[in-house]
Amino acid sequence: MPTYAPGSLLTVANLPIEEVAKVLALADELEALPAKEKSQKLSGRRVALLFYESSTRTRTSFELAAKSLGATTTLVSDKSSSIEKGESLKDTGLTLKALGAEAIILRHNSGGAPMLLARMTGLPVLNAGDGMHQHPSQALLDLRTILQRLGKPTHTVTETTLTGTTVVITGDIRHSRVARSNAMLLPRLGAKVILCGPPELLPEEAHTLHPTLEIARDFDAALKNADVTMMLRIQSERLANLKLDLPDYIARFQLNQDRLAACKPGMVVLHPGPMIRGLEIAGEVADGPQSAIEQQVTNGLHIRAALLVRALHEGAK
Amino acid sequence: MPTYAPGSLLTVANLPIEEVAKVLALADELEALPAKEKSQKLSGRRVALLFYESSTRTRTSFELAAKSLGATTTLVSDKSSSIEKGESLKDTGLTLKALGAEAIILRHNSGGAPMLLARMTGLPVLNAGDGMHQHPSQALLDLRTILQRLGKPTHTVTETTLTGTTVVITGDIRHSRVARSNAMLLPRLGAKVILCGPPELLPEEAHTLHPTLEIARDFDAALKNADVTMMLRIQSERLANLKLDLPDYIARFQLNQDRLAACKPGMVVLHPGPMIRGLEIAGEVADGPQSAIEQQVTNGLHIRAALLVRALHEGAK
Amino acid sequence: MPTYAPGSLLTVANLPIEEVAKVLALADELEALPAKEKSQKLSGRRVALLFYESSTRTRTSFELAAKSLGATTTLVSDKSSSIEKGESLKDTGLTLKALGAEAIILRHNSGGAPMLLARMTGLPVLNAGDGMHQHPSQALLDLRTILQRLGKPTHTVTETTLTGTTVVITGDIRHSRVARSNAMLLPRLGAKVILCGPPELLPEEAHTLHPTLEIARDFDAALKNADVTMMLRIQSERLANLKLDLPDYIARFQLNQDRLAACKPGMVVLHPGPMIRGLEIAGEVADGPQSAIEQQVTNGLHIRAALLVRALHEGAK
Repeated sequence: MPTYAPGSLLTVANLPIEEVAKVLALADELEALPAKEKSQKLSGRRVALLFYESSTRTRTSFELAAKSLGATTTLVSDKSSSIEKGESLKDTGLTLKALGAEAIILRHNSGGAPMLLARMTGLPVLNAGDGMHQHPSQALLDLRTILQRLGKPTHTVTETTLTGTTVVITGDIRHSRVARSNAMLLPRLGAKVILCGPPELLPEEAHTLHPTLEIARDFDAALKNADVTMMLRIQSERLANLKLDLPDYIARFQLNQDRLAACKPGMVVLHPGPMIRGLEIAGEVADGPQSAIEQQVTNGLHIRAALLVRALHEGAK
Repeated sequence: MPTYAPGSLLTVANLPIEEVAKVLALADELEALPAKEKSQKLSGRRVALLFYESSTRTRTSFELAAKSLGATTTLVSDKSSSIEKGESLKDTGLTLKALGAEAIILRHNSGGAPMLLARMTGLPVLNAGDGMHQHPSQALLDLRTILQRLGKPTHTVTETTLTGTTVVITGDIRHSRVARSNAMLLPRLGAKVILCGPPELLPEEAHTLHPTLEIARDFDAALKNADVTMMLRIQSERLANLKLDLPDYIARFQLNQDRLAACKPGMVVLHPGPMIRGLEIAGEVADGPQSAIEQQVTNGLHIRAALLVRALHEGAK
Repeated sequence: MPTYAPGSLLTVANLPIEEVAKVLALADELEALPAKEKSQKLSGRRVALLFYESSTRTRTSFELAAKSLGATTTLVSDKSSSIEKGESLKDTGLTLKALGAEAIILRHNSGGAPMLLARMTGLPVLNAGDGMHQHPSQALLDLRTILQRLGKPTHTVTETTLTGTTVVITGDIRHSRVARSNAMLLPRLGAKVILCGPPELLPEEAHTLHPTLEIARDFDAALKNADVTMMLRIQSERLANLKLDLPDYIARFQLNQDRLAACKPGMVVLHPGPMIRGLEIAGEVADGPQSAIEQQVTNGLHIRAALLVRALHEGAK
């Protein structure tokens, strides 16, 4: 992709597996570094966070990752900026570049915005979520969490690393960039990925994401051989629009203690957050020993630190 | 309270006087430190500010205090975060913890939220105001200001430090967490505290705050022997709801130059801000020599620095 | 102006040309400094950004300039502060001062607010835009950009530096603080300044800004001898209110490739941003070689760094 700066991360779709392995190795390396040494890695470098949608964990973890590496950050959000005055993404990007930003972390409500920004500014752009399209750093942090929980090496991956591993992703798949990114990445590493939910919330183009993807309507059946299950947030407004019944949804798709007991022992429970306890996931499951939800957040820090170092051409040897 | 991390400050209610003395001593110590040395105190430590309500002085002073100690801060406010998406306080707290936060400063519109957060995360939590319940750091900074203005030592207090000192708190006591915290702390140090205002704005349970609290309807009478008077902001909507007349309120309860002239010479004037000049306080009084309002703000910095060091178990020797 | 702290920049109206020259020289000096040395300039100093209006480039560039000099910044914006609760500008300013702020950067929707704040706090205040009144740092960064593009020395100016240079400012002059500041500064350095636009968008008091200002209705005629043209954003709501027709406005006043081709070769194109491509300026012109728009943003950083150093009395020798 000669039109994008090399350190960009826009989608997992065309990300070579060797690049995934490099990011993982770099995350390991940075995690092992003493704080003082880590804070020299991007000392004096400037990173802009451009957020057109609100966010807690993604924004905060990119910001803290950048600060831990010694970089200076500046946040531009649509709540307090020229974005309100109708300035184009292109001009906001060029302005940030002229202000000295060396990389831009973008969250945008339109799919494809990060590609546009990368092409128009020539800067490395890290996609922090674009519409219903992609959330590549989330897929990488989920991958690192899965590797850790399954006891596999975290510093490398190949096309067979997850062979024999079944991952069930359940909930509002259709509107979820997290699901889309995971469904495109994990099968390339050998995992069998099953998308589960009511038909109205499943994508129409599942097979275009990856040819081996499976669709399941019956959550209990899908869970039978799962090694990992990833629960997604359900917006109750969306259910109402689809004329889906909340109690019915909960009965059929909530991950609760009873369902968990019927699964493989040690099945890993993931959720990208924010979660609605009592809806897609029972509180006791979220807090239980099989939940890796907080580990996902911590891995967000390490993966994003690695992505920032890679974006600024330092250390991704 | 074994359920809370030791460095938490949730309420002044059960705060031992020795702890109050320790915070005061630590504030003195930190204030005396050269900037460079001070910036080593919490170097590399991570503090999250979680604000569900807007704030200028409390947020800014915690933030600047943390930065002056060398800590890295991150702000999560309801204007730009997953809070909007309905994430629970518990999950936001666990996320901040997983992101590496070692202490959380919380402002929340529900009384008791800081206790919940402290219990659920296991982190030290500093209550920066919870509903109409408590604002403990404000009570401590008010105390330090009173001690300074009355010429008493600021590095320690006992049960008799304020014996013989009369403090009148005037305005919307009922809805004020500042009043509540002061009314619970100052009497324990020997002060006589009088709560003053129209009956509709006085609490029903004054005696449960402290058995020695007095209630006064007549501001002029209450002021007669006051050494300190603390004026509280009045929301004019609230007066309207109570069918109280603004000019009448001003006539009876505004601290103006005439009233001040009838008080003890040197009576100290406090206001936690934000104030409405011309309503509860005349501008000339706010700007006059007896006003300690800016000194309160400065003491906010020192007290909050002390609370942060205490929260992170450094220096509260 | 004995009532303002010496390092304030409130308006260009009474700014001595020697002061303009000093700021320019300081910007040159700071730009040439290695990053490490630069970060010592204001190390440990505290700067508050007080923004009552939203802003991307001005806020971000002041913030990044301050951070590059080693200063600690704190942002107070009307979206998340006591400003909402009706606190006066005076009290917010005094609070920031009591919190240790040594300079305040103010954007406010009322003309004159920075003067008030400077007088009431005694702190140096940098006007980051006040209503339709002034935007002095913008005029200085525009000046630096013009000097660079015209191949003139950037470290000094006199009353004749721009003699023989024609600058056309086009668009909504009447409501533009950028236009007002430029129209008051550039003629004092010898430039001929022409204000251009439909009568409804031209000021009534052009001659009071500077006696040599000219007014033009015909953009093409005005451009004939222009060395520099500055395009201003047009709010389409404003056109609608004035019953001006958008296509007609574009036909008469848009700077497009055809018009540019008819101008002096090398005429410099400026725009303070945010711009609406396709309205007041064609995208190809904004991105073309004569556009100095990104250079303006970069100069914003250097000019604002100089203003901060000057405000804190360091280096404005």
